[in-house]
Amino acid sequence: MRLATIGTSRITHQFVKAVKQTGRFDFVGAYSRSEEKAKQFSDEFGGNLNFSSLNDLANSNSVDIVYVASPNGLHFQQVVVLLKAGKHVICEKPIFSNVNEFDEAVKIADENKVYLFEAIRNIQTPVFKTLQQELPRAGKLRSAVLQLIQYSSRYDQFLDGKVTNIFSPEFAGGALEDLGVYPLYVAIALFGEPEKVAYYPIKLSSGVDGSGTVVLAYHDFICTVLCSKITYSDAPSEIHGEKGSFRINNSSNIARLEWIDAHDKVLEPVAEHFEADDKIYEIGNFADILEQNDKTEYLKLRNLSRVVLKTMETARKQNGILFPNDKD
Amino acid sequence: MRLATIGTSRITHQFVKAVKQTGRFDFVGAYSRSEEKAKQFSDEFGGNLNFSSLNDLANSNSVDIVYVASPNGLHFQQVVVLLKAGKHVICEKPIFSNVNEFDEAVKIADENKVYLFEAIRNIQTPVFKTLQQELPRAGKLRSAVLQLIQYSSRYDQFLDGKVTNIFSPEFAGGALEDLGVYPLYVAIALFGEPEKVAYYPIKLSSGVDGSGTVVLAYHDFICTVLCSKITYSDAPSEIHGEKGSFRINNSSNIARLEWIDAHDKVLEPVAEHFEADDKIYEIGNFADILEQNDKTEYLKLRNLSRVVLKTMETARKQNGILFPNDKD
Repeated sequence: MRLATIGTSRITHQFVKAVKQTGRFDFVGAYSRSEEKAKQFSDEFGGNLNFSSLNDLANSNSVDIVYVASPNGLHFQQVVVLLKAGKHVICEKPIFSNVNEFDEAVKIADENKVYLFEAIRNIQTPVFKTLQQELPRAGKLRSAVLQLIQYSSRYDQFLDGKVTNIFSPEFAGGALEDLGVYPLYVAIALFGEPEKVAYYPIKLSSGVDGSGTVVLAYHDFICTVLCSKITYSDAPSEIHGEKGSFRINNSSNIARLEWIDAHDKVLEPVAEHFEADDKIYEIGNFADILEQNDKTEYLKLRNLSRVVLKTMETARKQNGILFPNDKD
Repeated sequence: MRLATIGTSRITHQFVKAVKQTGRFDFVGAYSRSEEKAKQFSDEFGGNLNFSSLNDLANSNSVDIVYVASPNGLHFQQVVVLLKAGKHVICEKPIFSNVNEFDEAVKIADENKVYLFEAIRNIQTPVFKTLQQELPRAGKLRSAVLQLIQYSSRYDQFLDGKVTNIFSPEFAGGALEDLGVYPLYVAIALFGEPEKVAYYPIKLSSGVDGSGTVVLAYHDFICTVLCSKITYSDAPSEIHGEKGSFRINNSSNIARLEWIDAHDKVLEPVAEHFEADDKIYEIGNFADILEQNDKTEYLKLRNLSRVVLKTMETARKQNGILFPNDKD
């Protein structure tokens, strides 16, 4: 299957490198508003196509699937054009601004008999899958603390008066959208849709959240999610059951899983798997779904995407964090 | 100054041992409803008095100050009898059920020209005092995660159908009162009274909270507190500022302080101080206040006690966790 890309930033480089590592898609070319940048990116990875017109990409007979990694706020309009033209799409997280967009895009994908995926690497890793399998060992779950607290060098620029995309509501930025999405995916993949969502953000002068605490309330279980782009911590994330707790090293790069028994308090390694680029797992899974036309797995992922997006939208809107695409 | 005790449990043993270690008070005797237990405890620590009548203890001319470590729900009625009889009181945390009791007890203490202290060891330790001094290094504070997640062996009994005091609303038990009080003291000693309190507890069948997440909202800063008696974690507690984060090993036994710079991400030890019994610091501070008649330090501690109690009361009542003494 022939893959093209939208976006020329670091994450697109990483994605195409991982695609090459897996060999599951053939990279054929890149789109950028700048023809020169598109050509440069395409050349770098051995593609023979480049596009500076989105319609040309959408209508190309030499492309089957497009990876979209433009600024968040542009995802929806670009993805819709691609789906309508019969292209499969892998859209970088966070997929869209709100559930309205999601439902509309899904409808278009179904009408055009193509697949729409959200790229989110953490829940596709082997260590996460081990966690999913081992979770019953913890007994009755009572609490979880899932965190992703990464100081962004762009916050230095922000403090100097320069608001980059990721700190801008115009581009659907903020800590929850950019980082909170990882621990939220972990929570919702493991525990399902919460009964109640309450977000306590620190709002920056630009209008987005620089950091915050999300409380996800389930029946007899509370999951607390922390995200921040303006402070730093390497503290692990944990899930606490009555029989013991699971600890993961990080909620976006899930590489190590440990277990602590509630009674004997001994820490025990469960799984460890370091891979320089853990995007290979999501790429492999998307390729499997496409090759096997695996509707069950597809709908599972799609529903997960929707619940995560719904949770983020609820959390934002509780606090008046609004994006341009929210305005109907 | 001659000290007597109420309560014969483990914590009272630890307190009297620490008193002996400091030499700041003379242990003279013990009270218990059981004359035999009182005598046994008194003998064990070289006291020559024992009481099975609270009035006898209150009216004894051989006692100046009483340490109260009875079940939480009994604190108020016992403390009031002692204060009215002109005894100073050190009452184990959590001091009372609610702010009404606190204000009434304080009024009685003032009228009788005696001091009323809440025993809470964590904020009196040298490492905590270093944290207080070093805090400005973190820059603008944005988030904190303070936790105390200790599986209680009494939860095994609870699961077997036996509700002990600490899991009973009748004795003003629960995770927030018993454990949450430590991280709440850390939060309020460092950051002051929160603008908003929101508690998300897991309520047990007995009516108290087995665990929960408290969100303390400050201006541009969110402190998240977790406590549990039904799960286990040894994860550290952290305070995140824009310049870097402070990490303490534990929020009740504060023995180690570390710093992580937000930019270079290097972990750096700041202070470490292991003391088998860190109660010696609170005992020393109470003795200093009494000897020097240090009203300033006394009122600082007293106000801190009141704000912590008010916060716990707000958190409980939001969730219908009510104690017998709440009924007016």
